[in-house]
Amino acid sequence: MPRAVDRTARLTAVGDAVVTIATETGFTAVTIRSVAERIGASTSAVTHYVGSRDEMLRIAVRREVQVRRSQAEAAMAGRHGAVALRALVEWAVLTADEATHRFWLALIVGAPNEPILRAELDAFNDWWDTHIRNMVEQTGITEVQHAADLLNVVVDGLVIGAFDDGTPWPRARRLQVLDATWRAIGIAE
Amino acid sequence: MPRAVDRTARLTAVGDAVVTIATETGFTAVTIRSVAERIGASTSAVTHYVGSRDEMLRIAVRREVQVRRSQAEAAMAGRHGAVALRALVEWAVLTADEATHRFWLALIVGAPNEPILRAELDAFNDWWDTHIRNMVEQTGITEVQHAADLLNVVVDGLVIGAFDDGTPWPRARRLQVLDATWRAIGIAE
Repeated sequence: MPRAVDRTARLTAVGDAVVTIATETGFTAVTIRSVAERIGASTSAVTHYVGSRDEMLRIAVRREVQVRRSQAEAAMAGRHGAVALRALVEWAVLTADEATHRFWLALIVGAPNEPILRAELDAFNDWWDTHIRNMVEQTGITEVQHAADLLNVVVDGLVIGAFDDGTPWPRARRLQVLDATWRAIGIAE
Repeated sequence: MPRAVDRTARLTAVGDAVVTIATETGFTAVTIRSVAERIGASTSAVTHYVGSRDEMLRIAVRREVQVRRSQAEAAMAGRHGAVALRALVEWAVLTADEATHRFWLALIVGAPNEPILRAELDAFNDWWDTHIRNMVEQTGITEVQHAADLLNVVVDGLVIGAFDDGTPWPRARRLQVLDATWRAIGIAE
């Protein structure tokens, strides 16, 4: 009978493989078989720990999203209003690396066809939107939804822009776009 | 010996199947086999017209991109400066339908792993960037690159935003983001 530590280690390996395959090739390439091959195990060894492909996706994506959410919370910790808002947005578009952005893009692209991905992405977006709206309100801006929309479009655009161009934009180029956005929504710097 | 019209009809069917599969599932799902199945032909019937998967991708993507480029050129036709710029951007984020945006996203996501896709996307982006820069210059704005960067980030963000949220944003909500962007780059309305 496997010990608890084995189960945790195995689920971690499965989750890492799901994230790696999704990042490299997209979620359509994530199957029980491809994950088993990646971790050098049999498909039955994988299904011993996750009952189905859907359960495997949910466990892996939820864990990965939770890691990103914890990073975002750390970036905002002890901050408020405009300063916290800038910290969250800079975490999203400056700190996160290319692999993280590729995983996020795979999640967005996969969500229309995979309800499990849609649900995990929606849960993260609810958390994100609540924080963005609260911080925008704290800055004293009255058109909260307009400001949040522009911020969200710019964050998505900076994340995807790196792949559209083929090479990630340097930090200064991203910062210039953020500065223009900050001026556009009327937050004093 | 097949007549020219047969060849054209077959290449059109192959191209349509490539675009449909890429739009639905991504370019990793586009194979000679999946295209043959989609059009109800044998794999050898497909390879009779396209020598390889790469050639099939190039023909299909180039044709699809050319259709979009013609639409964009029609939107700008007879216009100049700020008016032409707005027409091009509105074509990209308001006129194009969800399937078109999904295809574009599939192209961007597939480009890092598929040099054929990267080359076709780069060719389109060169065309796009040249037009954006020329029209921004015609408006009299001096910081051309800064304005072009913000515009491109907003266009990418509006395209991806529909999938991030799960439902496309209504036209008025997209227009509001464009209006804020226009004010940010200092183009008189």
